Amino acid sequence: MTQKLRIGKIATLLAMLEEQERASYSSLLQDVQCCEGKVGSMDMQKVISAVETAVKRSGLIQDGIYRETHALYHAILEGLEGITRGQWAIGEMMRTVGLRFAVVRGEPYVDSGEGEWIAVAFYGTIGAPIKGLEHETVGLGVNHI
Amino acid sequence: MTQKLRIGKIATLLAMLEEQERASYSSLLQDVQCCEGKVGSMDMQKVISAVETAVKRSGLIQDGIYRETHALYHAILEGLEGITRGQWAIGEMMRTVGLRFAVVRGEPYVDSGEGEWIAVAFYGTIGAPIKGLEHETVGLGVNHI
Amino acid sequence: MTQKLRIGKIATLLAMLEEQERASYSSLLQDVQCCEGKVGSMDMQKVISAVETAVKRSGLIQDGIYRETHALYHAILEGLEGITRGQWAIGEMMRTVGLRFAVVRGEPYVDSGEGEWIAVAFYGTIGAPIKGLEHETVGLGVNHI
Amino acid sequence: MTQKLRIGKIATLLAMLEEQERASYSSLLQDVQCCEGKVGSMDMQKVISAVETAVKRSGLIQDGIYRETHALYHAILEGLEGITRGQWAIGEMMRTVGLRFAVVRGEPYVDSGEGEWIAVAFYGTIGAPIKGLEHETVGLGVNHI
Amino acid sequence: MTQKLRIGKIATLLAMLEEQERASYSSLLQDVQCCEGKVGSMDMQKVISAVETAVKRSGLIQDGIYRETHALYHAILEGLEGITRGQWAIGEMMRTVGLRFAVVRGEPYVDSGEGEWIAVAFYGTIGAPIKGLEHETVGLGVNHI
Amino acid sequence: MTQKLRIGKIATLLAMLEEQERASYSSLLQDVQCCEGKVGSMDMQKVISAVETAVKRSGLIQDGIYRETHALYHAILEGLEGITRGQWAIGEMMRTVGLRFAVVRGEPYVDSGEGEWIAVAFYGTIGAPIKGLEHETVGLGVNHI
Repeated sequence: MTQKLRIGKIATLLAMLEEQERASYSSLLQDVQCCEGKVGSMDMQKVISAVETAVKRSGLIQDGIYRETHALYHAILEGLEGITRGQWAIGEMMRTVGLRFAVVRGEPYVDSGEGEWIAVAFYGTIGAPIKGLEHETVGLGVNHI
Repeated sequence: MTQKLRIGKIATLLAMLEEQERASYSSLLQDVQCCEGKVGSMDMQKVISAVETAVKRSGLIQDGIYRETHALYHAILEGLEGITRGQWAIGEMMRTVGLRFAVVRGEPYVDSGEGEWIAVAFYGTIGAPIKGLEHETVGLGVNHI
Repeated sequence: MTQKLRIGKIATLLAMLEEQERASYSSLLQDVQCCEGKVGSMDMQKVISAVETAVKRSGLIQDGIYRETHALYHAILEGLEGITRGQWAIGEMMRTVGLRFAVVRGEPYVDSGEGEWIAVAFYGTIGAPIKGLEHETVGLGVNHI
Repeated sequence: MTQKLRIGKIATLLAMLEEQERASYSSLLQDVQCCEGKVGSMDMQKVISAVETAVKRSGLIQDGIYRETHALYHAILEGLEGITRGQWAIGEMMRTVGLRFAVVRGEPYVDSGEGEWIAVAFYGTIGAPIKGLEHETVGLGVNHI
Repeated sequence: MTQKLRIGKIATLLAMLEEQERASYSSLLQDVQCCEGKVGSMDMQKVISAVETAVKRSGLIQDGIYRETHALYHAILEGLEGITRGQWAIGEMMRTVGLRFAVVRGEPYVDSGEGEWIAVAFYGTIGAPIKGLEHETVGLGVNHI
Repeated sequence: MTQKLRIGKIATLLAMLEEQERASYSSLLQDVQCCEGKVGSMDMQKVISAVETAVKRSGLIQDGIYRETHALYHAILEGLEGITRGQWAIGEMMRTVGLRFAVVRGEPYVDSGEGEWIAVAFYGTIGAPIKGLEHETVGLGVNHI
């Protein structure tokens, strides 16, 4: 890989690792901007909203600019494809998700002309709306910003 | 999470981490069976085949039994949904993948009645068939076996 | 076909045939467990729920075990793909379904190592939410359990 | 159901029942035109072609008229959605189908203004390209013609 | 193209052009029936309804006949595929549409045996539910009627 | 619409209108960069390639920069969703396309912070691989660049 910075890997590790497991990866975070959050819902709209709100609150993207919102939005959707695997629905399909997410913004490529990219990762569980009847799920979306 | 063992997280870490990065996670591997591999292709069939061959060669599933092949197959497909995000195609869409994969088999739930499950994780790049014109991608599929 | 028992065919016939038409097929039912039901809705969640409730009430799967719920759930979803043909939605698309369903559990393969499988079949109508503006639809999902 | 003739049910029974099982349904066939065939392939194009060829050879649709070809084509595609359940691919996904199909043309509705409709049903197996590693699959498409 | 009348092009131009831009295309409209409308919503059901209502009110299709409703419905859905590009959802995905639509009915082919066809075109914007955070979108569906 | 420049509409008109029909729209082209081309194929890869080649040859995007290739690629894919309406396939589904395409790059928004965007439009026919058995199809993709 000709990438100097793996923003997708960083985002996935942040979404997946507990605080105490991250010790060995702290160096990875020094060249990127990132934000994290949690969301549990049967409603896709709430999942998208939770990420957008966390990102805007942290100043990771410029709020009034559609261009950046558009880049983030498509990265979120692509991340959710991995979570839902084939059917764009949670509650309508009688399933619920409990997710941690991380959004990372940085310059992954050596060539500075490639500019900034954004990675959105999710990790958590998906399953029936009954505690414990669930399994793990992961998703990652990457876009130029 | 009421899972005692996160086979999806283990599989994703194995697919994503380099040898030297895994030190802190070696304890995770003691209660599961796993196998790993690599595949680069513009042909989905070759990606599926590479995983199936690696799994059968390692004895992770019983070769002659359709039941186990069926469980693995659907876990692979779900993992590839995260990789391809929305369109079931690689070469037909003028894109190519370079992936590392890991397959983990174990008993994730406390209740022994839940039996064994299988997790298939992919990590790597997807992009134009030109070196460097690519970004990261992740996928995870989980199934009962 | 090397199957000794066609649980998919049995489930489809049960969903499709009226009581009086089944006479010649009664012998098919002696080696399987099955349950049947009806559901009419513009809401996918209600269709999934109706099948899950009927199956659990009849004791066809073990209620507390996620493994069996997971197998049933994916068989239901695959059956509904045939019903909706391409778009995962009913009411959102201004259409409604009136369905009969049948769930069959048994050992379809000669080799006893293949164990039990489950088939979920639907038959009925799909169409505009106006009586008569509808046509027939069929769906079948099969999974190992 | 306000349909006088269930062309979808007739097509599905024809695709699913062996010659000797059909005795009780022969009366259903007197008011419709139908044709049947078989196809085994890893190539979706061959499956579509096999149905189109059988239909044209039997005179069930008018060969030179795009209108009828278009109606048949979409009914075939909808039937194949039930067969493939979610991913439009066979060989690319390392799977193969062995299918029987039946196409039925008739007037399903009481109101003669509704005219003729066409139903395309498939029944058979889908699975790994290894004899026996397969399970049943059903699909039905219905269109106005 | 062997079509004497391009109903898809006419519908798309009607949906896309302002009144004053249409001068040069008025001759195109003399051999077809058409109707137009507008709809803004986060709810797919309302978009479909708006088109169906406009079409029925204008007498473009026969209201009581399922055959014509079925042809229109599938043309609307195909048009909305272009609008939504890959995910069948608007509000669930935190996005909203503002669309103009045009429906054209006519005989596009030289051969009179091809009969009447219907084209449904949409043009407008899709984006976040915030004024201005949106981009253009187009969709066209064509069906025999 | 708060857009000062409708690059999607311009691209669609360019793809759809014959030379002689464009007279009244020439003023639209003065503030954008654009390129056009044609492609007929049963192979999606060739359609994507034809657009990429035309765009690179015309200098509309910077060839060596992945960022711009990535933006163009996703705009092409979104445009092809409208063309294929629901199934990502042409030849595999026994259909062929004959398309004209236009790519427009410009600044659609009043706020200069929104920067440049790209629109890819297709117009032509899709149908059976037999001359004349085809109907019109349209697709538009828009992305920030």
